[in-house]
Amino acid sequence: MQVAVVGGGVCSPEVGETAEQLGRLLAEKGHILICGGLGGVMEAVCRGAREAGGVTLGILPGKKMDANPYVSIAVATGMGHSRNVIIIESCHAVIALPGEHGTLSEIALALKMDRPVISLRSWDIAGTIKANDPDEALELLEKTFLHRSQLGENSI
Amino acid sequence: MQVAVVGGGVCSPEVGETAEQLGRLLAEKGHILICGGLGGVMEAVCRGAREAGGVTLGILPGKKMDANPYVSIAVATGMGHSRNVIIIESCHAVIALPGEHGTLSEIALALKMDRPVISLRSWDIAGTIKANDPDEALELLEKTFLHRSQLGENSI
Amino acid sequence: MQVAVVGGGVCSPEVGETAEQLGRLLAEKGHILICGGLGGVMEAVCRGAREAGGVTLGILPGKKMDANPYVSIAVATGMGHSRNVIIIESCHAVIALPGEHGTLSEIALALKMDRPVISLRSWDIAGTIKANDPDEALELLEKTFLHRSQLGENSI
Amino acid sequence: MQVAVVGGGVCSPEVGETAEQLGRLLAEKGHILICGGLGGVMEAVCRGAREAGGVTLGILPGKKMDANPYVSIAVATGMGHSRNVIIIESCHAVIALPGEHGTLSEIALALKMDRPVISLRSWDIAGTIKANDPDEALELLEKTFLHRSQLGENSI
Repeated sequence: MQVAVVGGGVCSPEVGETAEQLGRLLAEKGHILICGGLGGVMEAVCRGAREAGGVTLGILPGKKMDANPYVSIAVATGMGHSRNVIIIESCHAVIALPGEHGTLSEIALALKMDRPVISLRSWDIAGTIKANDPDEALELLEKTFLHRSQLGENSI
Repeated sequence: MQVAVVGGGVCSPEVGETAEQLGRLLAEKGHILICGGLGGVMEAVCRGAREAGGVTLGILPGKKMDANPYVSIAVATGMGHSRNVIIIESCHAVIALPGEHGTLSEIALALKMDRPVISLRSWDIAGTIKANDPDEALELLEKTFLHRSQLGENSI
Repeated sequence: MQVAVVGGGVCSPEVGETAEQLGRLLAEKGHILICGGLGGVMEAVCRGAREAGGVTLGILPGKKMDANPYVSIAVATGMGHSRNVIIIESCHAVIALPGEHGTLSEIALALKMDRPVISLRSWDIAGTIKANDPDEALELLEKTFLHRSQLGENSI
Repeated sequence: MQVAVVGGGVCSPEVGETAEQLGRLLAEKGHILICGGLGGVMEAVCRGAREAGGVTLGILPGKKMDANPYVSIAVATGMGHSRNVIIIESCHAVIALPGEHGTLSEIALALKMDRPVISLRSWDIAGTIKANDPDEALELLEKTFLHRSQLGENSI
């Protein structure tokens, strides 16, 4: 699965550890990580995924050279905030960590574009699925996706 | 001023009347209306603005022929939800009416991109300014913009 | 009609005069001018259109404050060269003046997106229609559009 | 290096064989292939790269499900022709095979955005570097990039 992880471009050490652990778990399950490719949550989740041998795809607002060092493949859009839409369009599901209004815009776009959104202590918006830690987020991810597959809703 | 009005692509008659009245007030004050160019709130606010002799700019997700009949100038982006970012980038301020997750994404992007957001009975997100009716929205719009001008923050 | 005029961001005085004259003619015929909103050919064609009382729409790569002073309505995309696609998607026809590779990309996109392209001493690409001066460009514009209308091909 | 290969969405068997051979060579050299992810030249070059164990990145105009079967990682932009700009922004260099106006737009954008463009029997535009076969294209690619590195021009 292509899983997008969204969250703040700066983050507390605690959120950073959660993001890194989430990255490791996603890589261990063989998922491709998609994110915005910059710092904070994006860098921490990429670092975790790479430590576990995973592939990380950074969809950047600007140029390739802006990518954090744990991005395997950099997609440079040169189109600023519009890159948020591409992150969501390219994923099967979203896991949201704490972040500001940029993160909220990605959650809202994901709900609009009918992607399941797991909120890991992030914004509390109707339609998201709440998780308390990375393990629970992974469980919910697979359960949700399996459920949608059975309903034939995964043609994205 | 270029003022973006955002809200649901379908809306109740009551919300439609509010949008139409808001469009009239914006046109009477000489503001250029920017919106997503489709139906619901977008059509109602354009209708109001045109009735009062105003200019309406519709920034469409698809093609020009999708515009509602009250759009004076149609910008066809062919880029789906990314057009939400262009609506916000092109305006000085946003007035949000009730809507679903698409509207929420526009509110979040506007806050991220540092545009004042007046929530006219729309999503209650920290950072927005609440208004109860179109008259109050217009008053708040001018007060906010004047305040920002005095701070030298309007170079957008 | 919404007519896009494309050409270099810097231009010779001679090309500038041609662009200004073209802008005047477009405005006199009641067409809405669409362009990239910056300098050179874009500024000259806007100046001509405004002198004749026309409406000029500038679709900018960056922010509203970058627009030349003759843009009536500024659409700020914040998405760099991708704004070229929006210029083409939003128009019924293109008139190309001399320019470099950016202008060539707009001509190519227009041919790809099935807009008639009149080349007024610009790139000589198969599929464009050659004109020698602004008057001839306007004549060809109307002839081409009329012809397409009769074929029912103008549903853009 | 991230190398973009552009060319027609439909192609002759001969061009398809050239594209496939080019894909194999790029993968053998360890380059990441970027393309538009659809059929014709795009599918043939991806097939070649995958046969040689390479990574292929498809930057699609629409949805992930539109990708050809040889795309390793699909980036779905949902923004039509604007995805051409992202292909170019994301690469270090471009190799162009025969194609129509969409291919020409990518060549023009690459020259505008200062990427080296190797034309492998594609459009003959001033500023491109001509190659006659995939081997020569690869040689020119490395020579050009090495030359730019020495000039300090590779900060993209």
